[in-house]
Amino acid sequence: MKRVAILGSTGTIGRNTLAVIAAHPEAFRVSALAAGANLPLIEEQVRAFKPGLVSLGKKEDAAALRTRLGRRGPRIVFGPEGAVEVGIAAGTDIVVSAITGISGLRPTLAAIRAGRRIALANKESMVVAGALLRREARVAGAEIVPVDSEHSGVFQCLAREKRKNVAKVILTASGGPFLKTPLREIPGKSVEEALAHPRWKMGRKVTIDSATMMNKGLELIEARWLFGLAPESLGILVHPQSIVHALVEMRDGSVIAQLSPTDMRIPIQYALTWPERLAPPLPPLDLADVGSLEFRRADERRFPLLRTAGWALREGESAPVALNAANEVAVEAFLAGRIGFGGIRTVVDETAAGHRTVPIRSLEDVFEADREARAAAYTILKRRC
Amino acid sequence: MKRVAILGSTGTIGRNTLAVIAAHPEAFRVSALAAGANLPLIEEQVRAFKPGLVSLGKKEDAAALRTRLGRRGPRIVFGPEGAVEVGIAAGTDIVVSAITGISGLRPTLAAIRAGRRIALANKESMVVAGALLRREARVAGAEIVPVDSEHSGVFQCLAREKRKNVAKVILTASGGPFLKTPLREIPGKSVEEALAHPRWKMGRKVTIDSATMMNKGLELIEARWLFGLAPESLGILVHPQSIVHALVEMRDGSVIAQLSPTDMRIPIQYALTWPERLAPPLPPLDLADVGSLEFRRADERRFPLLRTAGWALREGESAPVALNAANEVAVEAFLAGRIGFGGIRTVVDETAAGHRTVPIRSLEDVFEADREARAAAYTILKRRC
Repeated sequence: MKRVAILGSTGTIGRNTLAVIAAHPEAFRVSALAAGANLPLIEEQVRAFKPGLVSLGKKEDAAALRTRLGRRGPRIVFGPEGAVEVGIAAGTDIVVSAITGISGLRPTLAAIRAGRRIALANKESMVVAGALLRREARVAGAEIVPVDSEHSGVFQCLAREKRKNVAKVILTASGGPFLKTPLREIPGKSVEEALAHPRWKMGRKVTIDSATMMNKGLELIEARWLFGLAPESLGILVHPQSIVHALVEMRDGSVIAQLSPTDMRIPIQYALTWPERLAPPLPPLDLADVGSLEFRRADERRFPLLRTAGWALREGESAPVALNAANEVAVEAFLAGRIGFGGIRTVVDETAAGHRTVPIRSLEDVFEADREARAAAYTILKRRC
Repeated sequence: MKRVAILGSTGTIGRNTLAVIAAHPEAFRVSALAAGANLPLIEEQVRAFKPGLVSLGKKEDAAALRTRLGRRGPRIVFGPEGAVEVGIAAGTDIVVSAITGISGLRPTLAAIRAGRRIALANKESMVVAGALLRREARVAGAEIVPVDSEHSGVFQCLAREKRKNVAKVILTASGGPFLKTPLREIPGKSVEEALAHPRWKMGRKVTIDSATMMNKGLELIEARWLFGLAPESLGILVHPQSIVHALVEMRDGSVIAQLSPTDMRIPIQYALTWPERLAPPLPPLDLADVGSLEFRRADERRFPLLRTAGWALREGESAPVALNAANEVAVEAFLAGRIGFGGIRTVVDETAAGHRTVPIRSLEDVFEADREARAAAYTILKRRC
């Protein structure tokens, strides 16, 4: 019986994690949940899974949940400190880190320092503070198992192969909704069109990142730190069916690939059960039904942010922090209707171009670089809008 | 530095093994070679690789080689006992078992009993005596690493995954030259047409087995014993590009696949280097160049011998011996022009239908069952021709 705490329980990953847990009541119990402001859903989750500790974003919401649940029920906390409490909640074996964006960093680091197994879905943590988290995990003996389907694939392909035998790690990209859109039409695409992802059902931020392929750029940076790989050994391949999630090319020319149906519950469950496996949440893959798996090179004219992400991947230190911050600002502005789809690229590229890389030695360095890049991105945004 | 003995050095696998060794003189040395009757080639191999021991099929050939090489040079032996001597040659780390057919069995077993690592290409050994060889390997502590591209793929996909986590092992089949031939035309196909394999350059026997897909049937039986799998967990998928060689479906719905360019040197080299890997013999796979990987179900109307092989796989004991013996007789008769392509199926199916399964407890049981099945196959052949 593994006891699971979830950071971000009302998001897509959080809800899917609870579905996995509900499907295997013999294997898992929920110890703590952290959510934002979705009161009806967190109430439902608390009643169904009976965690001992719950955290919400705001004090008022915490009080409202207390009223709804009455005297009995979990301890209720709130705010960033509340999320950290969930990350280190007593009686927890695995912490699912699924808060979107850089606000997932503090509680994730706290969970790592507490020596928990981390099922990592919050890719921003690794993007902005990968070297730090890797170091802290080694010191605390915390295992970090990826939840992203691509990284879960890499994790499984690497198995116990020695790093010196690994020549290249390739993440696949579906190509998103604009894979075949004429190039000149892409910058003018609407929020609705950008959100219409052909394969994955995901949160809004991640879906837009998939349309720009920034998602893949961030995943390359995440993979660098998760697996301790050199930037030049990382690559991308467009694979519209999203069935092959990752490929690891070995030194001798053999390639090991991981495939699965397009459903987040599979990598989530694996992150919870590894090195064991449990019965699947859906019928197995039948490749004869699929018929054909297609692959093509990622085109940097179509996905220009890949070049910027490649710069941040190689540059390291504060560069990925700036990349991520500028992208968060730009995507938020796009989703709010303040800029067009093409504006995302402008904001990110101009922020990156103006960025002066500084070393990252602590969380404070991360937050400082993040603040600066956000300020720069907002300035660019205002000038443009 | 690993010292390698090769059983079957002048065949396709033997020659490719020597190519791998020649490419890595820092890693390998040849300790002993066993060949049949190709005197010019074995002479060339001896001069190039300087083994301490050589075995040929016949006494006259051994004498002729002695004359050609002069006083100096290796010890030269001959016949089945000579091959066994090569299998247990002193100062050998790895024995590549690549004699085609059941005559590879005795020297392979001898090498296993000597505790050598076996790089196994002689699939008939595992087909006819899998349970025996598995037992003997366990007793002697001999590692058996497969050379067949499909089994090498399975071996790599399984890595150290626990068997209870493995749901299904799937071998791919190119489909051979008759994958798209109208069904009614297949039985009348010529030797030349059957030998025109679209993907692999292999020996004649194996190429015909690929056209009937008996090759894949034998490989399923081999996989059963190599990996200790239940018959019902084994399957086949047609994959015309022959780039994905094997897929392992895990209990939780994840699939791990192995891919590589279509070149025997890759699995041969891996069998020699495992668990290490060395630089590849050819440029890496570029899936963007390949573009598309196709998969379809194997059609038993097109490849009726798959059904017969499935019977032998489930039946076990002497059934695979009979299957293999009848197939060897039938393919030889086809290659000699005595029967048509459709006659292969007739001979194998009628031999299988008349077979009474007996337990296999020793090598003698294997050879007895083999003799009986061959006799039965010849009788069917004569009645038909």
